[in-house]
Amino acid sequence: MGNFIGHVYPGLFLFFFGLYQAIVVSKAVLSNDSLLYPSWPPKNKGRWARLWKISFGGWAKIVAGILFIWCDILTSEEPIRFMSKETPPRFMYPKEWQHFTMFTLLILSGCADVLSKNVLPQRFVVLEKGTLVLGSYELLLLLVSHVKSSSGVELQVHSLLILVMFLLMVVLTAELWAPEMVHLWVMETFLFLIMGSWLVQAGFILYKPISGYPWDDDDISDIMFITTFFCWHVMIDALCLLGIYGLSSFWHHCYSPSLKLMGSRDALCHESTPGPLYSLLREVEQPEKDDQAPLLSKSSH
Amino acid sequence: MGNFIGHVYPGLFLFFFGLYQAIVVSKAVLSNDSLLYPSWPPKNKGRWARLWKISFGGWAKIVAGILFIWCDILTSEEPIRFMSKETPPRFMYPKEWQHFTMFTLLILSGCADVLSKNVLPQRFVVLEKGTLVLGSYELLLLLVSHVKSSSGVELQVHSLLILVMFLLMVVLTAELWAPEMVHLWVMETFLFLIMGSWLVQAGFILYKPISGYPWDDDDISDIMFITTFFCWHVMIDALCLLGIYGLSSFWHHCYSPSLKLMGSRDALCHESTPGPLYSLLREVEQPEKDDQAPLLSKSSH
Amino acid sequence: MGNFIGHVYPGLFLFFFGLYQAIVVSKAVLSNDSLLYPSWPPKNKGRWARLWKISFGGWAKIVAGILFIWCDILTSEEPIRFMSKETPPRFMYPKEWQHFTMFTLLILSGCADVLSKNVLPQRFVVLEKGTLVLGSYELLLLLVSHVKSSSGVELQVHSLLILVMFLLMVVLTAELWAPEMVHLWVMETFLFLIMGSWLVQAGFILYKPISGYPWDDDDISDIMFITTFFCWHVMIDALCLLGIYGLSSFWHHCYSPSLKLMGSRDALCHESTPGPLYSLLREVEQPEKDDQAPLLSKSSH
Amino acid sequence: MGNFIGHVYPGLFLFFFGLYQAIVVSKAVLSNDSLLYPSWPPKNKGRWARLWKISFGGWAKIVAGILFIWCDILTSEEPIRFMSKETPPRFMYPKEWQHFTMFTLLILSGCADVLSKNVLPQRFVVLEKGTLVLGSYELLLLLVSHVKSSSGVELQVHSLLILVMFLLMVVLTAELWAPEMVHLWVMETFLFLIMGSWLVQAGFILYKPISGYPWDDDDISDIMFITTFFCWHVMIDALCLLGIYGLSSFWHHCYSPSLKLMGSRDALCHESTPGPLYSLLREVEQPEKDDQAPLLSKSSH
Repeated sequence: MGNFIGHVYPGLFLFFFGLYQAIVVSKAVLSNDSLLYPSWPPKNKGRWARLWKISFGGWAKIVAGILFIWCDILTSEEPIRFMSKETPPRFMYPKEWQHFTMFTLLILSGCADVLSKNVLPQRFVVLEKGTLVLGSYELLLLLVSHVKSSSGVELQVHSLLILVMFLLMVVLTAELWAPEMVHLWVMETFLFLIMGSWLVQAGFILYKPISGYPWDDDDISDIMFITTFFCWHVMIDALCLLGIYGLSSFWHHCYSPSLKLMGSRDALCHESTPGPLYSLLREVEQPEKDDQAPLLSKSSH
Repeated sequence: MGNFIGHVYPGLFLFFFGLYQAIVVSKAVLSNDSLLYPSWPPKNKGRWARLWKISFGGWAKIVAGILFIWCDILTSEEPIRFMSKETPPRFMYPKEWQHFTMFTLLILSGCADVLSKNVLPQRFVVLEKGTLVLGSYELLLLLVSHVKSSSGVELQVHSLLILVMFLLMVVLTAELWAPEMVHLWVMETFLFLIMGSWLVQAGFILYKPISGYPWDDDDISDIMFITTFFCWHVMIDALCLLGIYGLSSFWHHCYSPSLKLMGSRDALCHESTPGPLYSLLREVEQPEKDDQAPLLSKSSH
Repeated sequence: MGNFIGHVYPGLFLFFFGLYQAIVVSKAVLSNDSLLYPSWPPKNKGRWARLWKISFGGWAKIVAGILFIWCDILTSEEPIRFMSKETPPRFMYPKEWQHFTMFTLLILSGCADVLSKNVLPQRFVVLEKGTLVLGSYELLLLLVSHVKSSSGVELQVHSLLILVMFLLMVVLTAELWAPEMVHLWVMETFLFLIMGSWLVQAGFILYKPISGYPWDDDDISDIMFITTFFCWHVMIDALCLLGIYGLSSFWHHCYSPSLKLMGSRDALCHESTPGPLYSLLREVEQPEKDDQAPLLSKSSH
Repeated sequence: MGNFIGHVYPGLFLFFFGLYQAIVVSKAVLSNDSLLYPSWPPKNKGRWARLWKISFGGWAKIVAGILFIWCDILTSEEPIRFMSKETPPRFMYPKEWQHFTMFTLLILSGCADVLSKNVLPQRFVVLEKGTLVLGSYELLLLLVSHVKSSSGVELQVHSLLILVMFLLMVVLTAELWAPEMVHLWVMETFLFLIMGSWLVQAGFILYKPISGYPWDDDDISDIMFITTFFCWHVMIDALCLLGIYGLSSFWHHCYSPSLKLMGSRDALCHESTPGPLYSLLREVEQPEKDDQAPLLSKSSH
């Protein structure tokens, strides 16, 4: 998939996965819930409870991985073989086989998630995290090996991706020891967002430049602007993450059944317009400040 | 701002910011106060109390960032555009746009400080630190990309700056987990001081050599002396930091209202001339030794 | 031993050592036992108890190290001397002397194990771990120096080995501070497995390619496939480790005398066929969840 | 001092400093004493007590630093100036000025030690460690800059030195947070020993090869043997450290007044010949095992 689609589709998947995880983490932080064992609303007792427990992330990974492999096989002009029939035989399609390996890692991580969350009677976090960490190590290796023959703009674009992947690997490794730490979850989510959106932009830079003219490998100015664009990218992703947290906080403040009675919902929501932003900021501190609960309940009177 | 002013002004800003922070940290250490939530003197209850609470650091960052951008635009001979009007269009002014990005990061960090300290009802440390950390990662990326086309003296000067920036990034990342740790604050302040004073010296080395003759890129002796000068630099900055701590300790010992009654102030100050240096050294140990209080009160009899 | 045997034999030793350690760690985790001071079955009181206490790992290391050195001397065509008799004298057989050093490190680590576990009245963990860590640092140095004159396929194969060795070094260093941590033991075992099996495969790639034709140093496709094969390798080793854990769990569930009476053994074993997989996953969590004991005893009713 | 003496003398100083520190650490570990605030024998109350408290290490650093600078000035054929009198003026003697900077760092570290241990009424560990850490960072920078113009044998020899210096820097930085941790002290001592003895050997390799013929920069075999020799070196230093610990343990067991009465000293010493080795190994574990005290008192009955 060394083409536009091969960069944009995985990028979009990673970006939307990051958005999904951002919402999950925001919700857990706002309701002071566990990140690994979130509690579901008590009213969803019936048929919906089962649906609620399904590991959406795991299934998304599996489906996406299979689709990517399928897409990779479809877009190839000739059938992808492992070795040529010449003498001596040579390996063929090295990049395609590395893509297959990457997508297999994605599928395996999804399988581990589904196995742990839905098949087994008890969630088995070490398996989930271990598969993810192992996948990130191998993905990093594959990416480094992938850019061996690149140069110029392509090398620079992928180097930044490798940097993000390296940081993600470090964060995921740290999560093995501290699977519940909010800092690490936020970082992981942020790095997913960056990686996804940067992959999309990489597709545009390398295969569909907006100006219509390809980027110039020999122009130092183009190489420098890639880093500049990446930095703007990171800033926008950070604002995006902050925005999701803000919206989650707003929603949490207005519709959360645990904070107030259902009757007074709308009143409170319109009454305290400047409140959500404050509370969004106030409640991040909650895990460290246990004396906030009475304050909160006082302010809701 | 690839000129003398473009190195000296940001350098001076960083240096004085480091000095300001050195005084703040010294005061907090000496009065055994919290680094994040310092208490202000009880007498400043009136109009001054509000002034006291203003986030000077945050406003300084915002004003400095805007001034630097303004200065960058002014010193440019022709208007700074994003792309040329040729066909194919090329990106223009890559270094200037990287500078703008750096200064935007400074302004954003200042905004986060002001927002957290003055706008919100409760300080939101994670936002402040997070913005700073993110800024340091991006600044490092931009610096690395900035020196891609350099060599010789310029490369060596900027490599040392990148090294300092890297250490600063590590320290700031560590502060995310331990925002109150004195060790990390002292390191952060020290690295700000080094970065600032080295930027000033870099301006002199690259654009206004004191001997009047430019440094020679091909002379290995000149390249080696850059590292030597940097080491002398670091030593002087360390002495500077120690000096600030000493003066703060002296001031704290003489004028601090919490240690003695106002009447006996002058007597004590002149009486115990060798005292401040001792106490400066004694009190660093305080957080770890709680049995020191009786010793201290005994020795003051 | 720059030949097929010189890669395959040490590789097999490392692989089987990894398997042995995987079983030991699985057993300790399943019976919630100490990793450093495992308890032995109470019935083995007599002559077998002494045999049980013997440091098999230590003796294996010593014997393997001596065999490898002996094998290295045997396969050399002329006697291995230290310096030539020319004027000026030159060092001879640099690779062989580095192999001897590596195997000496293995023997020393074995000696430390035996000394600590069998000679001394009390186990001296710091000596064991210290020797191992020091050995890993020196092995890394020797490997890096070993590939100085390599290129192409040989360099790529050994680079991946060096990467594994580096991670092993980090894990072993961390174990100095946390010698009982299960995470680190599992990682150490996993890295031993990878290193061993990769050494075997390296022997095949470099000296006995399965296709019968040597790999091509100048073909970027061959270089990329080495990384791809390594990733498949790691996945298979991970499954292997999981399999060992599964089998250990099965054995533990069926034959462990501490969980049930001897009489009801067979019944339980055949009755609860899907059980072992569940319990394998359930019990990893045990060290962190102490409230599992009642659940377990309930389910065995 | 780019000569034989300039490598051997600092090497010997570092080696003997390492030996001295090894004895101090061994003693502290054996008598379960604090590493930072060792207690002195109670009988040394009089004139000797003052002598005992003198910071020998600090004075040794100061004296050695001054001697090295003096020696450097003496061995230079012409007076060492800072700049030439030509037009344009050039920097002169870059290596010599870097040596002066290194020795100044040594003197400053000694001054900090003496100031903290003898001048101030209370030991100021942060100042001592901080100066040492800062010195190690700058020394690393200077070493890296020092080898810019080297190649072949000289580069390889100094690269290994830089590696040791880097590890020392990491260990010293870690000591800032855990100044009492035995692991870190042992590592620091070990790295001092390696650095010292390797500097001595570097002097022989570079300026006085034992065979009488200089090493060959272009011979890959010579380059590989440098790493091999370094590894043998590290092993010998490790045995040396173990030997010092053994002797200290023997001395501690025979002459320590705290374990037994003075009368039964000789008897015990000859009686329990195999004992010291056992106790040497037993007592390393002491900091972690508090139930050993009764065992120890039982065995001394």
